[in-house]
Amino acid sequence: MPSKAFYSYSAPGSVMLLGEHAVLKGYPAVVCAINNRITVELIPQADRHITLTSALGEFQTSLDKLVINPPFQFVIAAIKLYEEKLTQGFHLKIQADFASHLGLGSSAAVTVACIAVLREFANLGVLPMKVLSEGLTVLKTVQGVGSGADLAASIFGGLIRYQIDPLKVTPLIPLPYIGLFYSGSKMLTAAVIKHIEQQFRHRNTELINIYQAIAVCAEEGIVAIKEANWQLLGQIFNRQQVAMEKLGVCNQALQQLINKIIQQKAIFGVKISGSGLGDCVVAIGNQGAFSHIDEQNYIPVDITTKGLKCEETRLC
Amino acid sequence: MPSKAFYSYSAPGSVMLLGEHAVLKGYPAVVCAINNRITVELIPQADRHITLTSALGEFQTSLDKLVINPPFQFVIAAIKLYEEKLTQGFHLKIQADFASHLGLGSSAAVTVACIAVLREFANLGVLPMKVLSEGLTVLKTVQGVGSGADLAASIFGGLIRYQIDPLKVTPLIPLPYIGLFYSGSKMLTAAVIKHIEQQFRHRNTELINIYQAIAVCAEEGIVAIKEANWQLLGQIFNRQQVAMEKLGVCNQALQQLINKIIQQKAIFGVKISGSGLGDCVVAIGNQGAFSHIDEQNYIPVDITTKGLKCEETRLC
Repeated sequence: MPSKAFYSYSAPGSVMLLGEHAVLKGYPAVVCAINNRITVELIPQADRHITLTSALGEFQTSLDKLVINPPFQFVIAAIKLYEEKLTQGFHLKIQADFASHLGLGSSAAVTVACIAVLREFANLGVLPMKVLSEGLTVLKTVQGVGSGADLAASIFGGLIRYQIDPLKVTPLIPLPYIGLFYSGSKMLTAAVIKHIEQQFRHRNTELINIYQAIAVCAEEGIVAIKEANWQLLGQIFNRQQVAMEKLGVCNQALQQLINKIIQQKAIFGVKISGSGLGDCVVAIGNQGAFSHIDEQNYIPVDITTKGLKCEETRLC
Repeated sequence: MPSKAFYSYSAPGSVMLLGEHAVLKGYPAVVCAINNRITVELIPQADRHITLTSALGEFQTSLDKLVINPPFQFVIAAIKLYEEKLTQGFHLKIQADFASHLGLGSSAAVTVACIAVLREFANLGVLPMKVLSEGLTVLKTVQGVGSGADLAASIFGGLIRYQIDPLKVTPLIPLPYIGLFYSGSKMLTAAVIKHIEQQFRHRNTELINIYQAIAVCAEEGIVAIKEANWQLLGQIFNRQQVAMEKLGVCNQALQQLINKIIQQKAIFGVKISGSGLGDCVVAIGNQGAFSHIDEQNYIPVDITTKGLKCEETRLC
C-alpha cells in the first residue's frame, strides 16, 4: 500500500546556451533551467490500471500492457523502468505552463518529474544523479540520440556545465537554498521599532553595539555570498540571531521554531527574517533540507532573479 | 488618451537575510526576491473614476477624492504621487500568489508594481531607481518608518546588498538576462543529427573542426559566466552561431530572427538554441532589451535556480 494519497513533483524546462552538437561527442555544454515548469501528480489506484492525462489528451493502459507510443512516449518509457517494482496502478496528471512545441525541454522536464514521482511512489528515493541516469535511459529508449543536457538542467536548475563522458554536472552560478517558516503571528515593523526604542531608552550604547554587531554580520554575509560559502553564511545567520535576541525581538513562537530547525544536520543556520516579534524565520541549508522539519509552518520559496517585470507580453 | 487597452506589471515578494534594524541606521543589509509575485493590471477608464480590486475586496473612489486608508493604503498613496499627472481614471486589478500576512514583502511588491503601472500609464517611463525613490516616498507616507530594502528586492530581483545612506543597491550574484524567440517551426534533434551526418559524409575532418570550435565556445563561455562578463558571453554566442551556420543547421527563419536581433544596441549576442533547423534563438543582453524586438516571436523566460522539486507541500 502506498503511504500517501498523492505524490507530486515539478521540473523546469531548459534552454541550451552553448555547446550544441559538440556535447554529443563528449565536449562540455552550458544549459540553464527556465521558469516554466511541468508538474506531474500521481494518485495511487487500487488495481493495476494506469490513466495518463495532460493537455495532449487522456490515455488508458495497464501495468501489464505498457507499450511506448506517442504522445506519452516519455512517460510510458519512464513507467516501464519501474514496471517490476510497481504493484499498483495510478493516475498520472501532467500539467505544463508552457507549450511543448517551443523546444524548451518539455520532454526532459516531463521525464524527470515522472521519474521522481514514480521513484517516490515505489519508495526508491529521489537522488538527483539517479534521476539523471534513468532519464538518460528513457531518452535513449524513446529517441535514440540526445545529450541529456536538458534532463540535467531540469533536475539541478540554474546555469550548469554538462558533459556526458564522464557524466558530470557542475553548477556555474550557485545560489543558496533558503527555507522559510511562519511563526503564526505578525507585528508591524513600526511597532517593533517603537518597542526597541522603549526597551533601550536608558541603554543607548548597548543598542548601538547591537546594531554594529548586526552590521558586521551583513558585511561578512556579503563576503560569504560572493564566495558561495553557504556553510559560513549559515554561521553568520546564527550570529545575527544572537543579536536579534539581545534586541528583544525574538518571541516564544520564533524561538521554538529556531530551536527545532537548528537541530537538523542539513541546516547551516537559522534566524528571524525581518524586524521580529512575528512573521518568519529563514534557514539556510542543503537542498531539500527544509520541507520535512515543520510541514505545518514551512513556506516553500526560492530566490528569484526576476524583479519588477512588464507582464504585457504573454507566453503563447 | 492612453495608448494601450491595459498596462500590467508584476513584482516579487522578498525575504530579509541579514542586517535587520541596523539597516535603518545606514548600515548595509542583504535581501532577496522570492518566487511569489503580485501582479497589478491597470485598465484605463473614460471618466475620473477609480476602482481597486484585490483579494482584500473592492474599493471605489475618484481621482479627485484620494484618501490614504487601509486596506489599500499603499496603492492609494502610490496613486496620489501621480494625481496631478493623471487625467483619466482606471480600474486596478491586484492579484497575489501569496498571502499578505506572512511578512514576505507583499506591501513592497504591490507598491512597486503599482508605481510601475502608473508611471507607464502616465507615460513617465519605468526607471528602476526612480521606482525605488518613489516607493520610499510611499513607504514613508504610509508607515513612517522602514528601510525600503524590500522595495529594492522587488524591483531588482535576486540577492542584493542594500543601504539607505547613500541609497545604493548592488546585486550580489548576477545572472545574465536571456531572451528567447521562436522561429515558428520544429525539427527533432535526431533528424537534425542525421542531416548533419549526411551533409558531412565525405568531410569528416571539417565536421570535427566545427565540433571543436563549438567546444571552445562552451569552455570560454563557462569562464565568461564565472566572471559574470555578459558582454563577452554575447560575443561567444555570436561565435558559436558562426559554427552552427557552418554545420548547416540555420534555416531562413532562424537567420532572419538573428539578423533582426543582432542589430539592437542592447543585445550582446544571439545564436540558435538547441540542435537547430527550427525551435528558438537565444539572445543575451541588457534587462528589458528583448521584449520590443519581435513581440510576435518573443517568449519571456528567466533563468530559474529551482530544479526538480517536490510539490506536496503547498503555500497556505
